Amino acid sequence: MDMTVSHQQDVQSYIESNQENFLEQLFQLLSIPSISTEESYAPEVQRCAQWLAEHLEEIGMELVEVHPTEGHPIVYAEHCECGDEAPTLLLYGHYDVQPPDPLDEWKSPPFEPDLRDGKIFARGATDDKGQFFAHIKGIEAWLKTAGELPVNVKLLLEGEEEIGSKHLAPWVEENREKLSCDAVIISDSSMYAPGLPTITYGLRGLAYMEMSVRGPSHDLHSGLYGGAVPNPINELARIINALHDDGGRVTIPGFYDDVRPLEEEERQAFAALPFSEEEYRQETGVSKLKGEEGYTTLERVWARPALDFNGIWGGYTEQGAKTVLPATAHAKFSCRLVPDQDPDDIARKAQKWVEELAGEAVEVEVRIFHGGEAVITERDAPAVRAAARALSTVWNEEVVFTRGGGTIPVVATFSRKLDAPTVLMGFGLGDDRLHSPNEKFNLENFYAGIRVSAHFWEEMADAD
Amino acid sequence: MDMTVSHQQDVQSYIESNQENFLEQLFQLLSIPSISTEESYAPEVQRCAQWLAEHLEEIGMELVEVHPTEGHPIVYAEHCECGDEAPTLLLYGHYDVQPPDPLDEWKSPPFEPDLRDGKIFARGATDDKGQFFAHIKGIEAWLKTAGELPVNVKLLLEGEEEIGSKHLAPWVEENREKLSCDAVIISDSSMYAPGLPTITYGLRGLAYMEMSVRGPSHDLHSGLYGGAVPNPINELARIINALHDDGGRVTIPGFYDDVRPLEEEERQAFAALPFSEEEYRQETGVSKLKGEEGYTTLERVWARPALDFNGIWGGYTEQGAKTVLPATAHAKFSCRLVPDQDPDDIARKAQKWVEELAGEAVEVEVRIFHGGEAVITERDAPAVRAAARALSTVWNEEVVFTRGGGTIPVVATFSRKLDAPTVLMGFGLGDDRLHSPNEKFNLENFYAGIRVSAHFWEEMADAD
Repeated sequence: MDMTVSHQQDVQSYIESNQENFLEQLFQLLSIPSISTEESYAPEVQRCAQWLAEHLEEIGMELVEVHPTEGHPIVYAEHCECGDEAPTLLLYGHYDVQPPDPLDEWKSPPFEPDLRDGKIFARGATDDKGQFFAHIKGIEAWLKTAGELPVNVKLLLEGEEEIGSKHLAPWVEENREKLSCDAVIISDSSMYAPGLPTITYGLRGLAYMEMSVRGPSHDLHSGLYGGAVPNPINELARIINALHDDGGRVTIPGFYDDVRPLEEEERQAFAALPFSEEEYRQETGVSKLKGEEGYTTLERVWARPALDFNGIWGGYTEQGAKTVLPATAHAKFSCRLVPDQDPDDIARKAQKWVEELAGEAVEVEVRIFHGGEAVITERDAPAVRAAARALSTVWNEEVVFTRGGGTIPVVATFSRKLDAPTVLMGFGLGDDRLHSPNEKFNLENFYAGIRVSAHFWEEMADAD
Repeated sequence: MDMTVSHQQDVQSYIESNQENFLEQLFQLLSIPSISTEESYAPEVQRCAQWLAEHLEEIGMELVEVHPTEGHPIVYAEHCECGDEAPTLLLYGHYDVQPPDPLDEWKSPPFEPDLRDGKIFARGATDDKGQFFAHIKGIEAWLKTAGELPVNVKLLLEGEEEIGSKHLAPWVEENREKLSCDAVIISDSSMYAPGLPTITYGLRGLAYMEMSVRGPSHDLHSGLYGGAVPNPINELARIINALHDDGGRVTIPGFYDDVRPLEEEERQAFAALPFSEEEYRQETGVSKLKGEEGYTTLERVWARPALDFNGIWGGYTEQGAKTVLPATAHAKFSCRLVPDQDPDDIARKAQKWVEELAGEAVEVEVRIFHGGEAVITERDAPAVRAAARALSTVWNEEVVFTRGGGTIPVVATFSRKLDAPTVLMGFGLGDDRLHSPNEKFNLENFYAGIRVSAHFWEEMADAD
């Protein structure tokens, strides 16, 4: 496709001169509180899907559809005018966001985007609205200047990523043909460091669970009964504590059975990355780092499984003192998994182990929530190399290859259902506070993302 | 005081022939919704104090006063015509009541007393209006027949017991002289079993605290950081778990230093009481009882200190899954204390120990709330023996001596400020549902309470 070479300058000029419009549009998108985890926000999630569909029509996508699911809708669009010989790319993003709590820790309201110090503050700024929107703008730049794209592009935006993408897998299964592609592109991750373009070739998986410990059948007066009956908070703490050994290893029997060991080459590559334990400690604000013995921090978060508690509650939690010995106590916890651990297998093992740890004095129930498989992509796939060229062109730096600690369950879905490699090119930064108050996306990264996207479509057209 | 012997028959006859009047008067008292916890009911609490003051004048108390406080008023009355040689008794009761909610669970309205199956149903029936009113009727019986009481009697009725007796301690402090007495009598507890007259000679104390564990400086994404930083929920669980050893003993250094050991005689007395571990287990609804090794259930709740968690919270606690690694986690906990543990000393020791257990990876803060001292009354104190004689005369049963697991802070107040032993003789029963819907007081127990009171004043006059 020779014509593309001559277009890139126009495309980049278009991006340059439309930065303000793009930002204003992103602010509109970020203003919609599309919180998928809370049922009462379902109409806002719906409204966000509609907004996106209309926007995709406006920029000139040839086909735009909003597919209802039993949960939140899937927005699908495509522009496939290059024919069968040209590569086809599937761009995935998610337009739903995490709840904003605790609200009072936000410096500006989570759904009133605010630009301060070159940073866009809003829930979803980097996770994932700002990132996939950069690609939409990269596509727009081509359509508005060249009138076409150098490759076939399909776009899939889901509204349930933060609640486990429950309805995505069956929808992908039903639409295998429609979604067939040579590679999947996702920008829902971070650059290794500011200015250091990054491709993530591995992700951890997830098994998420909740346990409820029941002691007495009803709340008791702690004076009248304290010391004679099992206290579910104490018992819950005992179970939590028994889930790790002194070396920071998870005690669930069989937990490490299927863990793929780190390759020596990977350990060396990780060790070669600029990384300061002290900076990491300061960034997280902890007094001391803590994890599985025998591994570095990067190895721990990228290539080793972990078990963390995400929430805990029980008894009296309001102001002041109430001398209750509660009937129940609860905790949410999750395992981060690495290849080749299976989420269902791990969840069942965890469930069984917690039930065993509970002992005779209390009853425990473990509910299993959604899971996600860990994934790993070959580093020499054509799409990976095209992405690397686009990234290094824009950032003027060699690309670094990393793995990620988080989970993008859809990556496993695509890999399984579409048999296509996934390229993760994150435009975010490590300090973006995703899932936390004051989530942000650097304006520079938003604009760079748009330029990378515009280059990528062209690099992909030339890819071998 | 020889004359008293000849009066007891008249006194008991008076009680016998006035039962209907007494019940009607109690119904009037129970009709006043003197709910101290709700500000909007303050006028009703005031009206209740006035009603009592007028009633005490009617029955012939020589001095009756209503003392305003910054909260609800204290009703004080006395009849001290026996001179300095005769013993002086201070009777304590509280005329305020708990809120009646949930209202729809009451079979008859909470403030329209209803007699069904020999039981008086009303809020405050047993806690504490019915119980202290029995003493007032016992006093009336003497004044209306003998024209005098066999001992000096002081009466203190407060209106803030259900909200922590905030203004009572300073008032007692200011009125030490006025309140000076040989013993304090309180009927605000239960009989060990129906038909089994009971004196409670010990109560546990309380030290209440809250701890906050801080790990990261802000909530983190558990995927990106899980496995490399200390999780405050896990760390809190570790601390909670370390507060007890495997034998159910509290590990706080020095915790047991001042614990007064159970006397062999007490252990035998407890063991002789009708008690079924299986019934207790069913009543609490736990699968298995659990506590400090080497002690029975009654010993554990009455005479051994305990540490219980009353509330816990941290991270994401709403519906569904959120993969947060929270910045903080919190828990409320309290120690039930026995003689001669000091609440302040124990709280400080707990604080220090928790800080030590926290280690280097997390920061912990322990806030100390209010405390209350444990109390114990010598079983051979004259007032205890007089009460025992009066109780066994009326019930025609040997009195059982019990201790209580809960804390009644006013008992410690009286013990400290007035240097007088407290006799707790409860007329209530274990199934009276105090603080719950359908609170009741058995009519038989009300009448027995009046007769016990009338005997007690005489037994006290003869006490050595």
